[in-house]
Amino acid sequence: MKIAVVQMRMGPEPGENLERGMTFVEAAAAQGAAVVCLPELFRSRYFCQVEDPAWFDLAESIPGPTTEVLGRLARRLGVVIVAPLFERRAAGLYHNSAVVLDSDGTQAGHYRKMHIPDDPCYYEKFYFTPGDLGFRAFGTRAGRLGVLICWDQWYPEAARLTALQGPDVLFYPTAIGWHPQEKAVEGAAQRDAWRTVQRGHAIANGVYVAAANRVGHEPAPGAGAGIEFWGSSFIADPQGVVLAEASTDREEVLVAEVDPGRVEVVRRNWPFLRDRRIDAYHEITQRFLDEEKL
Amino acid sequence: MKIAVVQMRMGPEPGENLERGMTFVEAAAAQGAAVVCLPELFRSRYFCQVEDPAWFDLAESIPGPTTEVLGRLARRLGVVIVAPLFERRAAGLYHNSAVVLDSDGTQAGHYRKMHIPDDPCYYEKFYFTPGDLGFRAFGTRAGRLGVLICWDQWYPEAARLTALQGPDVLFYPTAIGWHPQEKAVEGAAQRDAWRTVQRGHAIANGVYVAAANRVGHEPAPGAGAGIEFWGSSFIADPQGVVLAEASTDREEVLVAEVDPGRVEVVRRNWPFLRDRRIDAYHEITQRFLDEEKL
Repeated sequence: MKIAVVQMRMGPEPGENLERGMTFVEAAAAQGAAVVCLPELFRSRYFCQVEDPAWFDLAESIPGPTTEVLGRLARRLGVVIVAPLFERRAAGLYHNSAVVLDSDGTQAGHYRKMHIPDDPCYYEKFYFTPGDLGFRAFGTRAGRLGVLICWDQWYPEAARLTALQGPDVLFYPTAIGWHPQEKAVEGAAQRDAWRTVQRGHAIANGVYVAAANRVGHEPAPGAGAGIEFWGSSFIADPQGVVLAEASTDREEVLVAEVDPGRVEVVRRNWPFLRDRRIDAYHEITQRFLDEEKL
Repeated sequence: MKIAVVQMRMGPEPGENLERGMTFVEAAAAQGAAVVCLPELFRSRYFCQVEDPAWFDLAESIPGPTTEVLGRLARRLGVVIVAPLFERRAAGLYHNSAVVLDSDGTQAGHYRKMHIPDDPCYYEKFYFTPGDLGFRAFGTRAGRLGVLICWDQWYPEAARLTALQGPDVLFYPTAIGWHPQEKAVEGAAQRDAWRTVQRGHAIANGVYVAAANRVGHEPAPGAGAGIEFWGSSFIADPQGVVLAEASTDREEVLVAEVDPGRVEVVRRNWPFLRDRRIDAYHEITQRFLDEEKL
């Protein structure tokens, strides 16, 4: 089975981003992909560079207009689509979400980003309520798949809890980039850390990992240097080997083969799941293990 | 502060391995290291290539003869030593352990390997009872440090639970290598996965990681192709940047600078610990999340 991740630029018009995203999904399907993952919040620029309540206007319900049009596309092409959306759940209650549309057009899954960042130019805590649906893998006609979003990718717990539900692939729609003023000094290490920690999840869990990032510079809606999204979308195998990797500066559709037999082989040779010390992990629900408690 | 990891070959004589290990500790101290980590089971060849009860003769008590001689060395040199030992706890009860000897010669910590592997030529489940001391960081005169052993390195839970106790460095004494018959095809990916998953722990936890591996070919005590230990000991910073890395085929002492200020800076810029969803991690104590339960 082939899977695809879409790496794209976003313009100021949501309708145009949706159209262009759909064109990329078609291109991925034409290359034989059975599952296509779009980048985080693909219908808009990354508005979280500033805190402005006007941006809540971009949010929509799930199901809603975008899931309807993408559901029709999924059915027409016979592909599963992982569609990250800005979800309006109620007045004053919004989530950074992703919907899985099955290849018959029905909704196979709904994930709400669990870990919400907040640092300069990534002011997500203002917009997004932390997810309350837990970590999820979903059954689809193209197999079982897990969905996590961006900041989740730094958390081994998120990868583990999703992988324990039996998917062959963890999808990570993402919006991450460089602060232009930091890029020269910090850029290479930041991008490498981002890729390495996710390859680590693939290895520790014996599962494919597919990351779909946006690309290109987006100005800050108010002022500031904006963000240069670093692309570098990739697909890694269950041993962390990078099967396909995109550029840092171009729109691309990345396609790679996913083989459940490879998951089986890797896990038989390195049987990490067998030896987990589940009797000794309970303190992982603690914030920190302060010295006086030990 | 400087730390060091020792990469060494082991011969058939435990007394000689101990002597040589001590010589490497002296060399590390001469280069200014305040903490020196020896490889897993450094007093002997990797006897777990076969299951033979005679090898239990190698085990010793903790404290015992080796901790005594290494404690004296630690005090004389004024260094902290992480000393992996085959521990005899009682008749029929053995552990794959590591002792932390403080720079005044006293015992600052005792860790018993929690995750025990068992796969062809690594028959550790025959020899070692899984650890019952939990995941541990220890206070020393050279700062707080965490100790894990070999197979533990594949488990994000182990790194997290140790890092949550506040160490600046996680030490991983190790004995890992290639099956000679697999090396040409699988060798590069295996070694890279080993390094990547540990760099991932550094990144996810914002902590230094130092891995000390043995090196060289050791014949199987009975028959078979033996194991070619791949060396490649390394020290990575809290962003996963490799500060020092050893060869695949030579004995070496690796030294690198550890700066608690760097831990502070990295964690301030990527504040992962702040956003952990401790309300949603409890199922990490499950073996698997079978579909029917979801």
